[in-house]
Amino acid sequence: MANREIIECVPNISEGRRKEIIEEIMAPVRATPGVQVLNVAPDPDHNRTVITMIGEAEALRRAVLTLYEQVLPRIDLRRHEGEHPRAGAVDVVPFVPIEGVEMADCVALARRVGKEVAERFDLPVYLYAEAATRRERESLPAIRKGQFEGWFEKMEQPGWEPDFGPRKVHPTAGITVIGARMPLIAYNINLNTSDLEIADRIARAVRFSSGGLRYIQAKGMMMHERNLAQVSMNVVHYAKTPMYRVFELVKAEAARYGVTVHSSEIVGLVPLEALLDTVRFYLQVHDLHRDQILEEEIRRSMAEAEAAESS
Amino acid sequence: MANREIIECVPNISEGRRKEIIEEIMAPVRATPGVQVLNVAPDPDHNRTVITMIGEAEALRRAVLTLYEQVLPRIDLRRHEGEHPRAGAVDVVPFVPIEGVEMADCVALARRVGKEVAERFDLPVYLYAEAATRRERESLPAIRKGQFEGWFEKMEQPGWEPDFGPRKVHPTAGITVIGARMPLIAYNINLNTSDLEIADRIARAVRFSSGGLRYIQAKGMMMHERNLAQVSMNVVHYAKTPMYRVFELVKAEAARYGVTVHSSEIVGLVPLEALLDTVRFYLQVHDLHRDQILEEEIRRSMAEAEAAESS
Repeated sequence: MANREIIECVPNISEGRRKEIIEEIMAPVRATPGVQVLNVAPDPDHNRTVITMIGEAEALRRAVLTLYEQVLPRIDLRRHEGEHPRAGAVDVVPFVPIEGVEMADCVALARRVGKEVAERFDLPVYLYAEAATRRERESLPAIRKGQFEGWFEKMEQPGWEPDFGPRKVHPTAGITVIGARMPLIAYNINLNTSDLEIADRIARAVRFSSGGLRYIQAKGMMMHERNLAQVSMNVVHYAKTPMYRVFELVKAEAARYGVTVHSSEIVGLVPLEALLDTVRFYLQVHDLHRDQILEEEIRRSMAEAEAAESS
Repeated sequence: MANREIIECVPNISEGRRKEIIEEIMAPVRATPGVQVLNVAPDPDHNRTVITMIGEAEALRRAVLTLYEQVLPRIDLRRHEGEHPRAGAVDVVPFVPIEGVEMADCVALARRVGKEVAERFDLPVYLYAEAATRRERESLPAIRKGQFEGWFEKMEQPGWEPDFGPRKVHPTAGITVIGARMPLIAYNINLNTSDLEIADRIARAVRFSSGGLRYIQAKGMMMHERNLAQVSMNVVHYAKTPMYRVFELVKAEAARYGVTVHSSEIVGLVPLEALLDTVRFYLQVHDLHRDQILEEEIRRSMAEAEAAESS
């Protein structure tokens, strides 16, 4: 289990209302050997479904091709409405390294899958995030801008030829975006102030788009129940822009307004390595390693003992 | 796997030289259903073997009784020499809560096993650490003091009647100490000074025995290769005396000598919860929970998916 290769793949498809269609699409995807579908989350307002699955590279490659095969005859963007911006029937397919694989493996996988999707389905493919072939395509919103409807014109603009496939928007499926990224961390820092303007200013100071840390997206928000302003963030690459660095920078920026940090919150999941990095920084333990975690060691020893017994 | 009950048991026996005897002792212990022996570490200089095994309470109870049954006819303390202090053939048996159990469960287990050991083997049993029945017996060194040879007299002293069994040292097996404790963390803080006296003073300030934090043992040490003084510590109950609190206190005490922290190190294993606590403190994330760790969530989802497939 310890050395198993685990990649996560989180395709977003532009259908979140017709449950039976979603199940028709998912049935053969679920049946792909070596792939486990962990979650299928349809959102009727967004009219979009987020699929979470894991497996090794080759198994995921097959599952993703099956997904396109199932989606293309069933989703027609000409008749799609929803709150969430989208430019493709299969809107975006990120590969995320989890265990026993490097980012480079996920980038290679994204490119291989991208090429095959373009060839098999005559669909323009854009590589994004860590798999992007040029700086302007690192950001998913930048690629998606204009959405399905606007892409017929955008495709003609200089610099928007696809990475793979025809320079021609698919009449019903639009374009598709495939890439590799780190697990996202939704991380919010609550301030001891009810002044939203201060949270906004701090957000602008720490986020990439206005001159801050490269892998931070941030905006100011009000937490109305508690009457506190919040710097609401996505940590897009926690290994390169670690959580503690954002925290310390927010704290320093807040100080100029005489504001302190009230608390912070991690919404949803956080990779173990991001927590270890935080401990390493604050306790100055430079060589703390995941293998030193008691529960992991016990799990490993148990797996070994079980393997020895059954052999 | 997530809800599995896991207790660790780490008996120390007073034989670390005769390999064949150790294997005779261990064979039936290993064969106990539901128990996994993770490690058997004989130390010839200490003439002592540290056994690490895990299982649920009932399985461990049986394994420990088997251990006493095997050890008693084979180890004779009248002929035992070694560097490590010892008062029993089975010197000490701690139960440590790992997953899905509380400290109270381990205390109950220690008392149940203690009673049974006393009755079956006519051996005086002392409960220690979290299972201790009086304050003076919390510390293992305090109980062991005088060692096997001195215990014949110590037994007569007021306050040293055993928790279970006869008030009479066993002629070959001495006494035995059984208890429950948290996983220990060996945690050292290196100072930006080569003055050992400063490390010693800080050690005295932070450790329980001279007025400091209740669950900290500490001493000053020299790291000769790097020419730095170190505060070398055991964190004996990380939930009650967390690592970050020791770190901050050492830092504050060092400041009075104009000394800063160079780095710190965790030697060996550390429970996940101790790391989470550190992150909670420094990032002020009050409700960070283990379930939020990405890798744990994936492991859980995979186990569920596998269980669903095989049912």
